[in-house]
Formats: sequence, structure tokens, C-alpha cells
Amino acid sequence: MPAVIVNQLGPEIGARLADHPSRPVIIEHDGSSRPWEVDSAADILLTRAFPAWRSAPASPPEGWPHRLRWVQTMSAGMDAYPAWMWSGTIVSSGRGIAAVPIAEYVLAALLAREKRIEQVTVRGPEGWGEVALGRLEGATLGLVGYGAIGQAIARRAAAFDMRILATRRGVWSGREPGVEPCALSAMVAQADHLVVAVPSTAETRHIVSSELLAMAKPGLHLVNVGRGDLVDQDALLDALDSGRVGFATLDVTDPEPLPAGHRLYTHPSVRITPHISWSDPAFLRRLSDKIASNLDRYLAGAPLADVIEPGHAY
Amino acid sequence: MPAVIVNQLGPEIGARLADHPSRPVIIEHDGSSRPWEVDSAADILLTRAFPAWRSAPASPPEGWPHRLRWVQTMSAGMDAYPAWMWSGTIVSSGRGIAAVPIAEYVLAALLAREKRIEQVTVRGPEGWGEVALGRLEGATLGLVGYGAIGQAIARRAAAFDMRILATRRGVWSGREPGVEPCALSAMVAQADHLVVAVPSTAETRHIVSSELLAMAKPGLHLVNVGRGDLVDQDALLDALDSGRVGFATLDVTDPEPLPAGHRLYTHPSVRITPHISWSDPAFLRRLSDKIASNLDRYLAGAPLADVIEPGHAY
Repeated sequence: MPAVIVNQLGPEIGARLADHPSRPVIIEHDGSSRPWEVDSAADILLTRAFPAWRSAPASPPEGWPHRLRWVQTMSAGMDAYPAWMWSGTIVSSGRGIAAVPIAEYVLAALLAREKRIEQVTVRGPEGWGEVALGRLEGATLGLVGYGAIGQAIARRAAAFDMRILATRRGVWSGREPGVEPCALSAMVAQADHLVVAVPSTAETRHIVSSELLAMAKPGLHLVNVGRGDLVDQDALLDALDSGRVGFATLDVTDPEPLPAGHRLYTHPSVRITPHISWSDPAFLRRLSDKIASNLDRYLAGAPLADVIEPGHAY
Repeated sequence: MPAVIVNQLGPEIGARLADHPSRPVIIEHDGSSRPWEVDSAADILLTRAFPAWRSAPASPPEGWPHRLRWVQTMSAGMDAYPAWMWSGTIVSSGRGIAAVPIAEYVLAALLAREKRIEQVTVRGPEGWGEVALGRLEGATLGLVGYGAIGQAIARRAAAFDMRILATRRGVWSGREPGVEPCALSAMVAQADHLVVAVPSTAETRHIVSSELLAMAKPGLHLVNVGRGDLVDQDALLDALDSGRVGFATLDVTDPEPLPAGHRLYTHPSVRITPHISWSDPAFLRRLSDKIASNLDRYLAGAPLADVIEPGHAY
């Protein structure tokens, strides 16, 4: 019996999985309205953080989990999903597939800040003149979170001879000689660039608080590629106004999009991008490779990769 | 007898050299008008590519080289200096001191291009939406020139898992396993990003020609951090108009600045910066360290580092 897969990740993913040697049955389903209402014959659900998941009912809808034995999500963070999604089924995440593009985005943000690439662009001879640019070499990078994204950032930052500090939950592998474990309060006092790349949980909400920002090295560049609610945006605006924080690059905000007229849109020391740091021409290939690999495991009865335990955010 | 040094590199360099253990005599001299008119008691001249050097007389001015035994210049390229500067004195260059900031600038340009960091910045909720960004991983970087600058670029690009092709004059050290030697014509056909970092000589003038650009991989991003005359700017404008070249980042132009109204200033696929890629908060420290190290050699009667032979451009 081939596996029956409800695919809410778009037709490209469906087409790639249809080529899997096991010839699964693919049911295409635009999950944007009620992504949990899946065909009762389905074994597997491929879904992503549609807005409908965020506004899902608090208790499981009738019939859940139907015949589903496995739910695969697209991104690493699980903050969009209701707790009942785990009822009666295994859930695995897309951990790691966006690490490379997000790391490239972060380095783009760091270099745009230090090299002031926009401000030094000239449109006529009157712009010619010496300017003082910053540099990454010797600057201190603080990584709040040292999972797949943090590690991909660190590898690239190391080639620029940055000093790299990192916090992480749980044990350190010790495999990264160039990366110094560091508590958040010590990190913020030393970092020239502070990159937030942790999942959103009850513990991490507003981890970038007014108290933390008060300890920041003056002129800090804050980069948020995690989730908008990791940063207390009012505290950030105060710290930007006082100059304590020199610049903020925010690929995520709370909410998304920010409402029209929000001060972060027009603050001269803020760059907002619309949650696009994961974008990558290879994203669909990486995602389908990951799903196909997990499908191999599923069909072999082997443990799936990147299973998320109930109550865990990533 | 302490060495007598005419310093045209600014008071910070003079102050640092005054602290040298040999206690040299420093004569501060703003060399912008006639930098070759130095005190007849001077042993050493520290100079840079002032416009006056470019418009120097063709034959040596009376008295040259006075008592000078050593001329140290600031940057790597020697294209600004008249041939007679070598008459009767040793000349050494600032080779390598700007390699790090220039490499950082180049990576900033590559990432700004792929991540479209300006275009994806939003100023209100209407900007929110999915966008397709490029990436460096897997892209091909062509390095025209593989000296100190090219090597510093390659090291950083390798951390992004780019494919790296390079041309260089002379023999390869073979010490760089990740960098493939490549002829320019083969390189331009494969490169997504082509970085020009060679000195300006009779052989390299217009090395980026209409013939070369006709072979380019469509959409090529051209980055020039060498000298403006390495690129045939009319040919570049044609290639930009046809779309053969997708974008050009030019830190150098011919002449500098370009005259008002030049099309390169306003072409939508061109970024011009005013010859600032070498700018670095550590530049003066690097420069004074290099000069102090050469002063040690000079005082010990040892061969100087980075001596430029007469007739050589770098």
C-alpha cells in the first residue's frame, strides 16, 4: 500500500514527492483555511504555519488525528501550532533547511551596517569624498541561540575573524573551538552585533527586554531572525531613541505585518524586512529532500528525523 | 643618527612613528601640492597617491631624490607615480594592508546583490509579501587577480560554499585547494559574480572589454575594486542595457569622480561608491605597523618588505 500524503506545501513539493520510488498518493490541499481538515485516508500531513493554525480552536477538532501517523511541518519553529496537533500522531519539523539562507541574510545585514552600503552610494560627483567605514574583523558577534542557524552564522562570521559569543539551551558539543559560550547579560555588554535566533517560547518571549538593552554596549546592532515576540519592541524603540542601540535589522516583528504607522517602520535606525530571510532558490529542493528522506525512514519503520516532542517549541 | 622621515600620511602616522624605539625625526609635510619637494635632510619619504603625483613632470625634478634612500607608499597600486620616483631610491608599497576591508566590501556587495537588502526593506504593511532572494552558496565567484585582496575575498567566500575561480599572473602557490585556476574567458562564462582586483597596467587596461562582456554568463554581477580603467565603461553600459550584465558595483571609476551627468551614476543596475572599499577603522594601525616593521629592517640594513621594482605597477 503506498503512503497517502496530504500536501499543503505547494505543487512543486507534491511533484517531487510523486517521484519518490514508493510512489505515494499525493492529495494536494491548500491548507490556508482549515489545514487540519484532511482526507480521512491520509497517513501523512505536510503543512506549514498558515494563519489558520494560529487561530485554531483550543481543543482538537472532531476526528483529529483522523488516520494521520505523521505530521511534517516546513519550518523549525513550532509556535504557530496548537498543542492538540500532537494528539495521536508524530510531528517532525523542517529544522535546519533554512539555516543557510538565514545565515547569509544575517551576514548581509552585518556587512550592510558596517559598510553602510546604501549611504555611501553616490549619484554624482558631489558625493565623492573620504568616508569612514566599519569592519567585521575583530568585532564581537553575539549569537542568542546556537542551533542550526546560529552554527551556520558562526561558520561564516569566523571567516571574517569576528569574535563569536553564543548562548544555547542545554549542553554544548564543544566541537566549535572558535565560539565562546557566554551568558546573555555578559554577551550584550560586549557584542557589536547581537543576533537573535531562538524559537519563541514562554521563556524566550521578550528575551530582548528593556533590562537587557540597558546593559548593551552603546551602538549595538540588533538583528532578529527568530520571532517578533522575542524582542520587546517598545523597549527597543526607547533604546534606539537614546542611542543605546545603534541600529536594528528586523526580519520578524510582532505582529506581522506591523500595523500601518508603527514607529519601527520609519525609525531612521531600523531596517524591517518582511520575514524573508529564509528565502532561497534552493529552499524547495532542500525541503523536498528532507521530506523524502523522512519518508524513507517512515516506510522502513525507522525513527523519523527532527521529531518534535509535545510541548517543545522546536 | 636617527632616521629623518618626511611624513605625508597624516599626523596619526607621524605620532605613531615618533614612538618608534629608534626615535626618528618626523617632518610633517602635507604632500598634496608637490610631494616630491622634500627636506634635503630626509632619509625616508612616506607618501600616497596625491593628485600631484599623477600630474608630476615627466622628468625628475631638480635635486631628486635628494638624500632619500627609501620611499614608502600607502597603497598597493603604483599607477599614480612617475617612473623617476624610483631614480636613486628604493620604493616599497602598502601591499596587503587594505586586503581585509576590501574583501569585506566585496562580500557586502555580493550579499547586497543576492539578498536585495535595500529593495526588500519595507516601510509599511503594504510591503509585506513573499519575495525570492538569491544566495551565495553554490554560486560561482570569479576573481580577476589573486593577490592579497583576491585571497582575502576567497577565504570569506569559501565559508559561504561558493565555487571560486581565479586568474593570477605568474605561478600559483597551489596552497589553496578550494580555488580553481581559470582563464578569464572561461571564468566570465561561468561566474555569477566577477570581482576585478588587479593593478592598473598597460596589459590590464580595459581587461573588462566588450569582447569579454559578450562572453559573460547572462545576469553577471561585476564588482570593480581595482582601478577604474580596468573596465571599458562604455562596453559595460552597453552590456547593462542589454541585460548581459545584471548589475555592477563600482568602487573605482575612470576618472574619479566621474563627471556630472555620467550615465553610470543613474543607471538602475549600477552602484557606485567613491573609492572607499579600503576604509577601515584599523587602517592607520595596520599602515603604521607595516611602516614601523620596515623601519626596523631599514635600520638593520635588511631588505625591505614589499619593495616595488622600477617599471612594476604593484
